Amino acid sequence: MATTCRIGSSSSAISTSSAVSASSSPSLSKRPSSSTCCSYPVVRNDLKWSSKLSFCKAVAETSALSIKMQKSTAAGPMTTMMVSAPVKRGVDVQFDTKVFKKEKITLSGRDEYIVRGGRDLFPLLREAFKGIKQIGVIGWGSQAPAQAQNLRDSLAEAKSDIKVKIGLRKGSKSLIEARAVGFSEESGTLGDVVETVSESDLVLLLISDAAQADNYSQIFAAMKPKAVLGLSHGFLLGHLQSNGQDFRKDISVIAVCPKGMGPSVRRLYVQGKEINGAGINSSFAVHQDVDGRATDVALGWSIALGSPFTFATTLEDEYRSDIYGERGILLGAVHGLVEALFRRYTEAGMPEEDAYKNTVEGITGVISKTISTKGMLAVYNSLDEQGKKDFEIAYSSSYYPCMDILYECYEDVASGNEIRSVVMAGRRFQEKEGLPAFPMGKIDKTRMWKVGERVRAVRPEGDLGPLYGFTAGVYIALMMAQIEVLRKKGHSYSEMVNESVIEAVDSLNPFMHARGVAFMVDNCSTTARLGSRKWAPRFDYILTQQAFVDVDAEVPVNKDLIGNFFSDPVHNALEICSKLRPTLDIAVTADADFVRPELRQCTKSFSS
Amino acid sequence: MATTCRIGSSSSAISTSSAVSASSSPSLSKRPSSSTCCSYPVVRNDLKWSSKLSFCKAVAETSALSIKMQKSTAAGPMTTMMVSAPVKRGVDVQFDTKVFKKEKITLSGRDEYIVRGGRDLFPLLREAFKGIKQIGVIGWGSQAPAQAQNLRDSLAEAKSDIKVKIGLRKGSKSLIEARAVGFSEESGTLGDVVETVSESDLVLLLISDAAQADNYSQIFAAMKPKAVLGLSHGFLLGHLQSNGQDFRKDISVIAVCPKGMGPSVRRLYVQGKEINGAGINSSFAVHQDVDGRATDVALGWSIALGSPFTFATTLEDEYRSDIYGERGILLGAVHGLVEALFRRYTEAGMPEEDAYKNTVEGITGVISKTISTKGMLAVYNSLDEQGKKDFEIAYSSSYYPCMDILYECYEDVASGNEIRSVVMAGRRFQEKEGLPAFPMGKIDKTRMWKVGERVRAVRPEGDLGPLYGFTAGVYIALMMAQIEVLRKKGHSYSEMVNESVIEAVDSLNPFMHARGVAFMVDNCSTTARLGSRKWAPRFDYILTQQAFVDVDAEVPVNKDLIGNFFSDPVHNALEICSKLRPTLDIAVTADADFVRPELRQCTKSFSS
Repeated sequence: MATTCRIGSSSSAISTSSAVSASSSPSLSKRPSSSTCCSYPVVRNDLKWSSKLSFCKAVAETSALSIKMQKSTAAGPMTTMMVSAPVKRGVDVQFDTKVFKKEKITLSGRDEYIVRGGRDLFPLLREAFKGIKQIGVIGWGSQAPAQAQNLRDSLAEAKSDIKVKIGLRKGSKSLIEARAVGFSEESGTLGDVVETVSESDLVLLLISDAAQADNYSQIFAAMKPKAVLGLSHGFLLGHLQSNGQDFRKDISVIAVCPKGMGPSVRRLYVQGKEINGAGINSSFAVHQDVDGRATDVALGWSIALGSPFTFATTLEDEYRSDIYGERGILLGAVHGLVEALFRRYTEAGMPEEDAYKNTVEGITGVISKTISTKGMLAVYNSLDEQGKKDFEIAYSSSYYPCMDILYECYEDVASGNEIRSVVMAGRRFQEKEGLPAFPMGKIDKTRMWKVGERVRAVRPEGDLGPLYGFTAGVYIALMMAQIEVLRKKGHSYSEMVNESVIEAVDSLNPFMHARGVAFMVDNCSTTARLGSRKWAPRFDYILTQQAFVDVDAEVPVNKDLIGNFFSDPVHNALEICSKLRPTLDIAVTADADFVRPELRQCTKSFSS
Repeated sequence: MATTCRIGSSSSAISTSSAVSASSSPSLSKRPSSSTCCSYPVVRNDLKWSSKLSFCKAVAETSALSIKMQKSTAAGPMTTMMVSAPVKRGVDVQFDTKVFKKEKITLSGRDEYIVRGGRDLFPLLREAFKGIKQIGVIGWGSQAPAQAQNLRDSLAEAKSDIKVKIGLRKGSKSLIEARAVGFSEESGTLGDVVETVSESDLVLLLISDAAQADNYSQIFAAMKPKAVLGLSHGFLLGHLQSNGQDFRKDISVIAVCPKGMGPSVRRLYVQGKEINGAGINSSFAVHQDVDGRATDVALGWSIALGSPFTFATTLEDEYRSDIYGERGILLGAVHGLVEALFRRYTEAGMPEEDAYKNTVEGITGVISKTISTKGMLAVYNSLDEQGKKDFEIAYSSSYYPCMDILYECYEDVASGNEIRSVVMAGRRFQEKEGLPAFPMGKIDKTRMWKVGERVRAVRPEGDLGPLYGFTAGVYIALMMAQIEVLRKKGHSYSEMVNESVIEAVDSLNPFMHARGVAFMVDNCSTTARLGSRKWAPRFDYILTQQAFVDVDAEVPVNKDLIGNFFSDPVHNALEICSKLRPTLDIAVTADADFVRPELRQCTKSFSS
């Protein structure tokens, strides 16, 4: 396997980067002090990027871009899988579609199968959704408003008479918002939860994870036999497994999991009306299939959402990579990283506004945009000589500390600990056992985020912030470490790339650029918010205690690590995945519509 | 129950302290800005404390000091308890001793039974240990060196011929250290692990938690039928439960859990040779009793260790309170708290050395000493007017944020998550699945701890640091929140007071005063170190994001919270517990013997 050679140097490398201090290692040569990164440098807004994109040649040659159209010759339709069975892995999934075209792509030497999307495929939705008269969308959190509207628009385009109906608890504040975008009791497209579930042939359960954990038995009970339960996250499976429970055996269970938050799913779909195929990629999983329809229903759902491409996974792999991802580079780790960097820069004397720009603004702006359009290596190549030095120092010192926390996080998720922890936290939102309620507090009132408000207030439209080498080095080290853990844990390249790179740069970061990281932490899904609160400080502490200590001790750059970064096969996989979706300027305005927290909270108790 | 009245105001209080910002709450009156605590104040080394100790009168009257000697009239000896049974709670434990005297104490209105220690009781050890010819002490970590030496000294004093033998893996570096204090192969007091286990009638399994998790089956297999397995921590039970395993049914399983780390257990025992009864209190538990001897063996063990008093608990309550406690005020929370305060004080312009003194030095010095000798209220009463104001502001803003994290921590421990997490972390210390090894890195190289080194280098002998009102308010809020969670979770007052107060001020803090908090975090047990890394940053973040934000927004002091602090029945319970042990100046020198990390690590793989 192409990645095996990268492991060899790991155990020696870790001892250099985190376990041995410079003072106890006389053999370590010192870097000249001019390369120290804590002196105050000028914000480099005026950097001109190199236009040369150097995806590693060796890699590109050995695992060349090879997308081949293929007829449905793979294994037969998936049959019912038991949750009590051993963990199913996405890389093992074989799927067959009667309606869409399956394509083989080779990512870093591994064959994977995907289905491309596009508005031209909407006419196929009628075939894919055969037997479905009503799609019930339950909840109105992050995904539900986006998915319900996209589905309705796509089905209209397909001239289908399938009804999309929203199910909300009586008295929900979300009723107003659902009505505002055209769903209504009068037209029969807005109703009660149980009523909607019991009428629908496809039930998209898009309430919060905590609400799913607390209400699944009612939902299951209300479903018609042979109906299809659709999830956009594997969380519920993890929760059921953790409690020795299972899905009803007479329904199909599928998932379509957009690799972006709901507002991005809607925004890119709307923008995609101009540019065919623009949208958020999704993974799909067929967990139970009672009548052979499940795969095409899932693929139809994904295409109707506007997914440029859809790749196969399992519910297990999905919740592992998703919960891990949002605790990592998508949200939690980014928060911890910018806190640590902001503190470091300001303690070294950098003015607050510049420190803010050199941390948050660059990451959510220019670094994201560059990765989105040209890949990670292009960020490095955009830097000048000093910037490249700073990048290497930062990357070398941060890679293993980031991996340390990411690795722990992955195993906490895979063991079920993290899911149990989320469910327990949800129950602490209310008073119990004589202890008061602990809803999540806001994080956006601290010094750094006040500076952010000031910076955004005077930021010129379209300004993407500076490209700052040290920050870029830490951020991309985090991204690469996140990828490496997923790779060693057996995830597909499609999942790795979408979960660790594309979702960050195409969905989360543009929103964070518009409103700040803290706002995102305070306004995304409950599971992600809880995770960010839990893991962000871990990344902050380990970077401060290990990475920056090494930098200040002038521990030499680990050249193996830098070499591995240049030659990692993931760059090629990302390039291939990037070509599967049209390039689009992701437009997020300062007043971009995040989902309001009170709407998410009220889904929590929809059954009351 | 005396505590019930405190709950009523909680839910409204939380909304003031953490959920409502001052700007959105026009009804909240503003404190004068002179009371803001972030301006740079002078280090007040010269404070004269009020000598008046005002344990709340009302409380003292309603739950008066009532220690009564009582004959063994309670329920009969404990019989075998199954681990598959529901969680056993310490408050329900009834025990009976044939050898020692059981005393009833009334702590805050609840009757509890304890056994006092003292060197005068050593002659009873022969009776308590009837049938035991050899005590095997397995491991040489934190507890083992202390317990083995204390047991040997006490048995010698009792003129008992019971042999105390250390069991270590072949080639262990600890062999040298064990020999240095008089255990030897020649005298038959030092041997191999399995050999020692198989010969011993009482096996004290004092290897690290991770090593217990990995090696328990070998240990169990080597034990003689009807032998007694002694633990100093309930961790192994938690691990077994988490894996559906159980103890062997033909052995007794007991625990004696000193409420202090090993070096304190030894140090106070040695000091106790001068002052009869000085030592570290212990809890004890009888989990399985195959022949009716278990209770007296446990009590004998505890008295031989020098415990001033021993209270009853269960293995379940022990591991819950212990793992929670070390993640809280004993280590993790203190670390996070001083990091957050040091940053706050320095950002406000306080010189680093003063900021260090006003955070770490005061807590580990004067605050600890005051609590140890006169209780928590005495700290408040020692403050001048401004100090009292600062205390109240800090206490009021920090209490619920601290409780938020403590509560989460408790539930993570009780659910088994934390134990699983520790076991998984231990396995990441070695390479696996293509990912490198991640041993724990040091945390002591950051700015704050370098300042600490400078402060200690010039600190006059016996200097206990300043008493700083704001720091005291945060620290005592943490202590009270820790107590409140244990109380609501049903722990006995003995456990609450020992785990949350006495262990902190009599064991951990004096060592931290000698060497710094970071040194302690880097050198205590693996489970505690892991926990501190995980939870310290959570406390730091929540204090910064919520408590200090409220302080700066001049959210008014929650007078109910302050009132509750003054009238909490725990002060009375602490006073009673304090009178059960002689006052002693805890002497910890700058070169105090912490257990070396490599010794702990090697117990991990003792069987290899």
